[in-house]
Amino acid sequence: MHHPEIPTIHVDVQIMFFDTDCAAVVNNIAYLRFIETARTLLAEQIGMSLAQMAETQRYPVVVRTEIDYKRGATLGNKLEVKGWLEKVERSTFWVAFEITRPADGALIVTSRQRLALVQMPEGRPIRLPKEWDVRFKHLKAH
Amino acid sequence: MHHPEIPTIHVDVQIMFFDTDCAAVVNNIAYLRFIETARTLLAEQIGMSLAQMAETQRYPVVVRTEIDYKRGATLGNKLEVKGWLEKVERSTFWVAFEITRPADGALIVTSRQRLALVQMPEGRPIRLPKEWDVRFKHLKAH
Amino acid sequence: MHHPEIPTIHVDVQIMFFDTDCAAVVNNIAYLRFIETARTLLAEQIGMSLAQMAETQRYPVVVRTEIDYKRGATLGNKLEVKGWLEKVERSTFWVAFEITRPADGALIVTSRQRLALVQMPEGRPIRLPKEWDVRFKHLKAH
Amino acid sequence: MHHPEIPTIHVDVQIMFFDTDCAAVVNNIAYLRFIETARTLLAEQIGMSLAQMAETQRYPVVVRTEIDYKRGATLGNKLEVKGWLEKVERSTFWVAFEITRPADGALIVTSRQRLALVQMPEGRPIRLPKEWDVRFKHLKAH
Repeated sequence: MHHPEIPTIHVDVQIMFFDTDCAAVVNNIAYLRFIETARTLLAEQIGMSLAQMAETQRYPVVVRTEIDYKRGATLGNKLEVKGWLEKVERSTFWVAFEITRPADGALIVTSRQRLALVQMPEGRPIRLPKEWDVRFKHLKAH
Repeated sequence: MHHPEIPTIHVDVQIMFFDTDCAAVVNNIAYLRFIETARTLLAEQIGMSLAQMAETQRYPVVVRTEIDYKRGATLGNKLEVKGWLEKVERSTFWVAFEITRPADGALIVTSRQRLALVQMPEGRPIRLPKEWDVRFKHLKAH
Repeated sequence: MHHPEIPTIHVDVQIMFFDTDCAAVVNNIAYLRFIETARTLLAEQIGMSLAQMAETQRYPVVVRTEIDYKRGATLGNKLEVKGWLEKVERSTFWVAFEITRPADGALIVTSRQRLALVQMPEGRPIRLPKEWDVRFKHLKAH
Repeated sequence: MHHPEIPTIHVDVQIMFFDTDCAAVVNNIAYLRFIETARTLLAEQIGMSLAQMAETQRYPVVVRTEIDYKRGATLGNKLEVKGWLEKVERSTFWVAFEITRPADGALIVTSRQRLALVQMPEGRPIRLPKEWDVRFKHLKAH
């Protein structure tokens, strides 16, 4: 039997001072950096290389973020960011994320982001790569 | 006739280099800083002063963010962040935001955040101030 | 008598959660944002507008930063950033900064940055504007 | 012959969107995050664990930063941050950094930071660990 591909990435991060705030936990904004790192490496894995983006000026652009903060994390914590391609629409796609703390198995953050492919500097939306129709057929929205 | 209070704040920001990225527009994460500034000043206006938070270690903590990116903004753009108290639940409340560019009237970003009041460093949720039951009765979720 | 021009700027900032870290004071990196804001507005005042930079792709680029942290600042503190053109060399110039807390007169941070004018994306250094030879003659290095 | 210990750390980073700005290179402030990460891991290696810092509220605090920007780095670049203990004074110590791009051997950034050990929240300076007198005798300033 054939297992359809679900592009997935795992990124390890350790909480630094600049990730925390005076409430002594990680500031809500810092997680978006962790997520951007995972998303960028996932895009590279799917075939959108950073070098190519910089050259063609075609970038996957975040058009919506949903993020739920479940538990606080603190200085020095080692977290794992898991990101995966969740859904592919005509001209946008969704990536989902889960941030956990392996030391105690705590679920820290869940998130989803919707992205569009955009030609800069005009900001013009571009159709997703044609090959995605077949490659990610099982992730197509109905 | 009596107009019920809807606490609202307006904050002006100008886009700096560190707000942009190499796609030549404002990075999606930067808007969360603008929103945090508006939210913090709104909290102060409602009666949660920063000095008091630091002293009592009771902080309004973001438990969910939803943010939609409508249009790109660029270096030097002057934006207006409008934030207001949208809904009050038993132990959490929602604040809504709209970021616009007055120069051309463009709507740049819309966002909503759900917050809980938390006693640090334990991370224990606290009941919202009792006086909110009356003061924000018209914003109560049903 | 003629007072030679020393371009100077004052910027007010208030410390937000994302400026602090878990040591409960402002993180050392946050001050560099305050300084970049002051520097950018100073550059605009001297005649390097942000819109023009984005169009011509000629940017003042930081080539060296020196910063001394004198006192900690905390959540909610209102600080004043003063920045001024300190010295003009053949192809670079220095801007100096002082960050104070008016409430108690405390000196929080002092800093100096050396900048070069650079043509992007090549990264090629450009001569400073000719008119600066006369305009900032009194700030010329010997 | 005995080689005296010079605590040294190497950290790999890859340039993400949020590290760059609209001049298409890494924003000057982003390097300070890379340096903070290296410095924190170096501190941990020397015996100042993050968990211990958070518990005792004794933190190494940056009192001065000097940083020279030699070359620009761009989206997707893989950089190596090398940090080492440079000098130990009575109550402060210096850490030095070099950021290079292994792909072409380019030297991107050099930096030095002076740190003091501080008891928070009072902000009171603390004497460096007594064992450093012997352990880092060869790094003592004269």
